[in-house]
Amino acid sequence: MKTEASTGYVRPLAIAARDAAQSIAALDSAQRESLVGAMADAIQADRATILGANASDLRRAREAGTSGAMLDRLMLDDARIGGIVAALREIAQLPDPVGQVTRSETRPNGLVVERVRVPLGLIAMIYEARPNVTADAAALCLKAGNAVILRGGSEALASNQAIAASLHRAMRDCAVPEAALVLIEDPAREHMLELLQLTDIVDLAIPRGGEGLIRFVAEHARVPVIKHYKGVCHLYVDRAADPELALRLLIDGKTSRPGVCNALETLLVHSDIAPSFLPKALEALAGKKVQVRGDESTRSLSPAVAVATDDDFAAEFLDLILAVRVVDSMDEAIAHIRRFGSDHTEVIATSDPAAAEKFVRSLRSSAVMVNASSRFNDGGELGLGAEIGISTTRLHAYGPMGLESLTIERYVVRGVGQVRHPG
Amino acid sequence: MKTEASTGYVRPLAIAARDAAQSIAALDSAQRESLVGAMADAIQADRATILGANASDLRRAREAGTSGAMLDRLMLDDARIGGIVAALREIAQLPDPVGQVTRSETRPNGLVVERVRVPLGLIAMIYEARPNVTADAAALCLKAGNAVILRGGSEALASNQAIAASLHRAMRDCAVPEAALVLIEDPAREHMLELLQLTDIVDLAIPRGGEGLIRFVAEHARVPVIKHYKGVCHLYVDRAADPELALRLLIDGKTSRPGVCNALETLLVHSDIAPSFLPKALEALAGKKVQVRGDESTRSLSPAVAVATDDDFAAEFLDLILAVRVVDSMDEAIAHIRRFGSDHTEVIATSDPAAAEKFVRSLRSSAVMVNASSRFNDGGELGLGAEIGISTTRLHAYGPMGLESLTIERYVVRGVGQVRHPG
Repeated sequence: MKTEASTGYVRPLAIAARDAAQSIAALDSAQRESLVGAMADAIQADRATILGANASDLRRAREAGTSGAMLDRLMLDDARIGGIVAALREIAQLPDPVGQVTRSETRPNGLVVERVRVPLGLIAMIYEARPNVTADAAALCLKAGNAVILRGGSEALASNQAIAASLHRAMRDCAVPEAALVLIEDPAREHMLELLQLTDIVDLAIPRGGEGLIRFVAEHARVPVIKHYKGVCHLYVDRAADPELALRLLIDGKTSRPGVCNALETLLVHSDIAPSFLPKALEALAGKKVQVRGDESTRSLSPAVAVATDDDFAAEFLDLILAVRVVDSMDEAIAHIRRFGSDHTEVIATSDPAAAEKFVRSLRSSAVMVNASSRFNDGGELGLGAEIGISTTRLHAYGPMGLESLTIERYVVRGVGQVRHPG
Repeated sequence: MKTEASTGYVRPLAIAARDAAQSIAALDSAQRESLVGAMADAIQADRATILGANASDLRRAREAGTSGAMLDRLMLDDARIGGIVAALREIAQLPDPVGQVTRSETRPNGLVVERVRVPLGLIAMIYEARPNVTADAAALCLKAGNAVILRGGSEALASNQAIAASLHRAMRDCAVPEAALVLIEDPAREHMLELLQLTDIVDLAIPRGGEGLIRFVAEHARVPVIKHYKGVCHLYVDRAADPELALRLLIDGKTSRPGVCNALETLLVHSDIAPSFLPKALEALAGKKVQVRGDESTRSLSPAVAVATDDDFAAEFLDLILAVRVVDSMDEAIAHIRRFGSDHTEVIATSDPAAAEKFVRSLRSSAVMVNASSRFNDGGELGLGAEIGISTTRLHAYGPMGLESLTIERYVVRGVGQVRHPG
């Protein structure tokens, strides 16, 4: 097997993690619940140490001239540590997917065929600044019976080390091999490259972060990758939409948290309803300080609307900016979404059930919402519990990834000596 | 996006196929059933043309000095065409996975959250000599609502062209865009490389064939790959095994069809039962002309047993050869399988339920059989209907891949105007 970047630093850690994965998989549900609960307790107990490490990360980042948004993602305080602890306690309590029998059938020859969930094995998480991912990802992977290798951003290294030390202590206390949780502490890029080449050891890589990181991982990985790309999410206001309902979805989708992937980026409005709906919508958006970039029809309604280019329609603004276009039919809206969308989340506002079904059937996005906000495309909101990300890869898992997506179904067959070709 | 091998020959075909995939996905179940039925009829009607094309492939192969096994895989005759037609009719009748609601939940806020199966999109099949794969893979992909690009072996090109022409005629007759089924007719390797780089167009590549082909695809693909590697399948005869049952599983697993991936390659025998079981087993194997390569304990029982090396224990013989080892405990058997196995199929013969459960739990293979032959790891035998392969990739699908594995679950959410952060 070719290894383009064999520095040899990661491989032994990964082999030890893969071997330790067998111990994690062998734990029963109660043991894995206790383990994640102990991890929550350890973070709680080590709060001061973790905050101290985070303060040094923040100091370094400020000295390096890091900007506000990045500093905010990096920052931990009592409330955020409390959030991590609460998230781990929630993960500990989630139903255990491992061992779940998803199908069972007795074949005509008497074989009892079961499909049973087993852990994936060894998962590599590659992420950026936010230190809470270290705890969340570790807890989700271990809860689902896997080992995990974490490669966080160098700017959060001290915080991640403190969190990992705390989690390792919990593992020791539960007599679980610490090797099942690896934090790569050397930020050199060749170590990440080496990790992504370990096809015989790593079962899955999950990158989380900006588009640049995800493209880098997708480009260089030889191990399977589930990508969590950008969300260019659309709201289509159908000719048969309830205007007040549509406006509510628009304002929630665009303004309730503009920096996340399930926020709206583009509004498409049917030309029959545009004259009545759009002026009110533009007024409401202006009231929320949203900058609008629109097509000609939209611009004719307000001088404050800038010109929308194709780049705007393809953009994930992650900011209080919205692209707007008037379309003459639902087909035109669907064609627009197919061209510019990212398969993340699309919303239709309509009172016409046939229009809703056509919209749902015509789009292949991970979530399609009928008369509900795009912001609901989230593991917690859709009933999965905590999520490890939202997949835009149409393989294995598509949309929010919960615990179940960190397992795979395999076959267990029980017989009494059946053979395929009786002699 | 980097494209290491952009010859530009495949990309336009793939874009047209991706666009046509939307038409296939939009067909209803009855239409896709009719389509695959029409494909069966067309192959039946074009039997003579297909056999003629196959004869020219065979002539070319013989002139090139191709060997017996390869010629056999390439060869079509009336019976094999009949087999293709029957397989397509069976695929036509299989339950439609598309549109299936796998989960439905009403959230506390009234949102109705459904998980619904949708097609993957565009699937690339890369395979070797057997021309029946052209028809089978096309039918399975289209039945599950996908478009498909087929890249078969150059030795079967005329046969594959004749089959594809026949399938295209059926698609025309059903008013389905022919672009949804592409046969790459130029065998140049750079076209396969180009295909494997089309990350924005191809949703999944499935290589089927020898280990060399699969490694080549896995090594060079930037699109997701589900690998169908070798099967180094084990039978472990526990100390508590019924010797007659164990012998039956051994002979069926090794000799009923030695050239396939679910055939047995290694026998592990507990030392408590070896003195009574192994002599009879060796005698039965000799009677079936199976060459045995064993460890010291096995060799002490028969001078006909050659020395088994580590290479033998790692080998997929695909032939009447068996590696044999005596182990002092089940733990030793499990350690052996973890070291040498390929995660395909493992079998335990035992009358001890606790031993069976320990064996099942300790191994991560795609199928674990208790008192049943390894040869049952097959889509038809396990109740899936026709299969597109047996995955040894622990992601998306693991074990036999039927129609369902050519789809993905996504979320459809229906509301009455719910928002995440009511204003």
